[in-house]
Amino acid sequence: MNITKPTLLVDLQKCKLNLQRMLDKANSKKVDLRPHFKTHQSIQIGEIFKEFGLKKITVSSVEMAQKFAENGWQDITIAFPFNPLEIKIIEQLSDKVELNILISSQISAQKLKSITRQKLNYFIEIDTGYHRSGILAEDFKQIARAIKLLSAHQFIGFLTHSGHTYQAGSIQEILEIHRDTIDKMKILKQQFASEFPHLTLSIGDTPSCTLAENFESVDEMRPGNFVFYDLMQLNLGVCKLEDIAVCLACPVVDINRDRNEIVIYGGAVHLSKEHILHNSKEIFGQVVKLTDTNWYKLDEDIFVISLSQEHGIIKASDELIHTIKIGDVLGIIPVHSCLTMNLNKNFKFKST
Amino acid sequence: MNITKPTLLVDLQKCKLNLQRMLDKANSKKVDLRPHFKTHQSIQIGEIFKEFGLKKITVSSVEMAQKFAENGWQDITIAFPFNPLEIKIIEQLSDKVELNILISSQISAQKLKSITRQKLNYFIEIDTGYHRSGILAEDFKQIARAIKLLSAHQFIGFLTHSGHTYQAGSIQEILEIHRDTIDKMKILKQQFASEFPHLTLSIGDTPSCTLAENFESVDEMRPGNFVFYDLMQLNLGVCKLEDIAVCLACPVVDINRDRNEIVIYGGAVHLSKEHILHNSKEIFGQVVKLTDTNWYKLDEDIFVISLSQEHGIIKASDELIHTIKIGDVLGIIPVHSCLTMNLNKNFKFKST
Repeated sequence: MNITKPTLLVDLQKCKLNLQRMLDKANSKKVDLRPHFKTHQSIQIGEIFKEFGLKKITVSSVEMAQKFAENGWQDITIAFPFNPLEIKIIEQLSDKVELNILISSQISAQKLKSITRQKLNYFIEIDTGYHRSGILAEDFKQIARAIKLLSAHQFIGFLTHSGHTYQAGSIQEILEIHRDTIDKMKILKQQFASEFPHLTLSIGDTPSCTLAENFESVDEMRPGNFVFYDLMQLNLGVCKLEDIAVCLACPVVDINRDRNEIVIYGGAVHLSKEHILHNSKEIFGQVVKLTDTNWYKLDEDIFVISLSQEHGIIKASDELIHTIKIGDVLGIIPVHSCLTMNLNKNFKFKST
Repeated sequence: MNITKPTLLVDLQKCKLNLQRMLDKANSKKVDLRPHFKTHQSIQIGEIFKEFGLKKITVSSVEMAQKFAENGWQDITIAFPFNPLEIKIIEQLSDKVELNILISSQISAQKLKSITRQKLNYFIEIDTGYHRSGILAEDFKQIARAIKLLSAHQFIGFLTHSGHTYQAGSIQEILEIHRDTIDKMKILKQQFASEFPHLTLSIGDTPSCTLAENFESVDEMRPGNFVFYDLMQLNLGVCKLEDIAVCLACPVVDINRDRNEIVIYGGAVHLSKEHILHNSKEIFGQVVKLTDTNWYKLDEDIFVISLSQEHGIIKASDELIHTIKIGDVLGIIPVHSCLTMNLNKNFKFKST
């Protein structure tokens, strides 16, 4: 593949398989798929979603909304708390495309009300237990007040991201969190149904969207990571290693046989410092074998055990250390594909 | 300052003070300062170093060497293990500028010997205890063999990076590591002095270069981080908060008074996921007060306690939570300025 330095490879075929599976799931559950584009942030990868007939997307910043709007996307939800400092760009964008913003508290609603007269579409962000942002699902009063404050605007529905599934210790626990989310959102929908019979319930996280079967009352799902998956999802039991569609190709620059360590050109500026624990130790990526046209699981699980700015250190087995030479290129499956992709905007599609 | 989204601010005056102090130290110790440009990677900030009369620099990739060579830098050390896959660019660059590469093992020397006939300048990388890459300082045999293998090339000297100072628990411990480094490098110099009377001893890390007074036998220092410093250096006792020359300006997008949490627009794609421990808890940045022209320490230490892609969560005091409004902009001092800078190439100079 003519790799000379760290290069992120994207397997288009795997992306399409992952996308087809999620779309089949959404269709079978009669739920709209509004994929989150923060994972790839790429116009080119966005085109794949167009090929699958998708027209609605999610982004995590006004900047990303602008970028995809310029590329022809006409229906965009910014799934990030409303930032009043960007009201002008939001107003301009709302004139051009169907734009939904997120109101995550009563004071956020108050702020929006006070700074615009333009009619904007908004979701109320609901906190179903992740406790990052949003109004607690049980807090009907605050929710009602926010909606009342914004009566001049267009209320779309309730949106939640159950990010606490990423802390789950088992698939069972992910499904329990999802069940709890569904229950809370369903009650909310019932609570506001008489006033807003057409409100949308939108849920988000890749673990739930991939694993769950029960989407009762849900109208829309917004997973993002699923198009690539990564080591974190593998570790949670959400995907298989073979499903992961991104891999960082890294030149081997040194080998230390006394410590069974391989030094690669590939560090924190390529992979990000996101880590997971494996046998109580921090790991930053998993090693795969790379050929000209593909990557393959090794017989053993071998990991990147530390990262500095440009260096990665692999703790190798005796077998691996004796088959690898300086100048070879190894593949590293990233822990968090969204952050790795953000650092490698000049990715390459894997040759087939 | 017209901030509407996360924006890295660089305090030029602080950069210059940090640079002047390090240059004074180097001059007083009769050591050459060859600053590491991986910290800023910026042509514009590079110009400040030119103003101070500096002509030699360090970088951590061939790509960075190319970039700074194109901008007129004529004497560049690539302080990263030699990557044979980039030999062509290395050869081309060596024709244009004074370029030093790094040989970090006997097999790395063998590889270089086998793939080029061009005469190249090289350092031998010495491992004085960090155990990332390089030949152990005591391994005279391997060092001698590497030098012998590369007899057709130009041996410059020994280079080490005592990165284990970043694991030190006290200033005392940093100074002990530095003393150990100096001792090991001095012995090496003596060992090879008869054959190479003009060899250069080059040491690297910001903690040692900032704190130590003993630079016996050292010819060159290559600190990088010192131009900005950061929370990690503050935590090690290497700098004061007032010395830190970078700050991420982040809009406040929500406030949760029940949990004493402030949600900022500023996440892992702006700060990086580098963290340090404070009272056994992970922190990702420290909050400072931001005005139109400067940033200031708060009365209390308030930290960013979690990051997702675009969100940051601040655990606030009762006092802070009642003075902050949605739409305000807070300053966040990053944990690791090199990684934060890498994510914010469109930084702004702080107005004065």
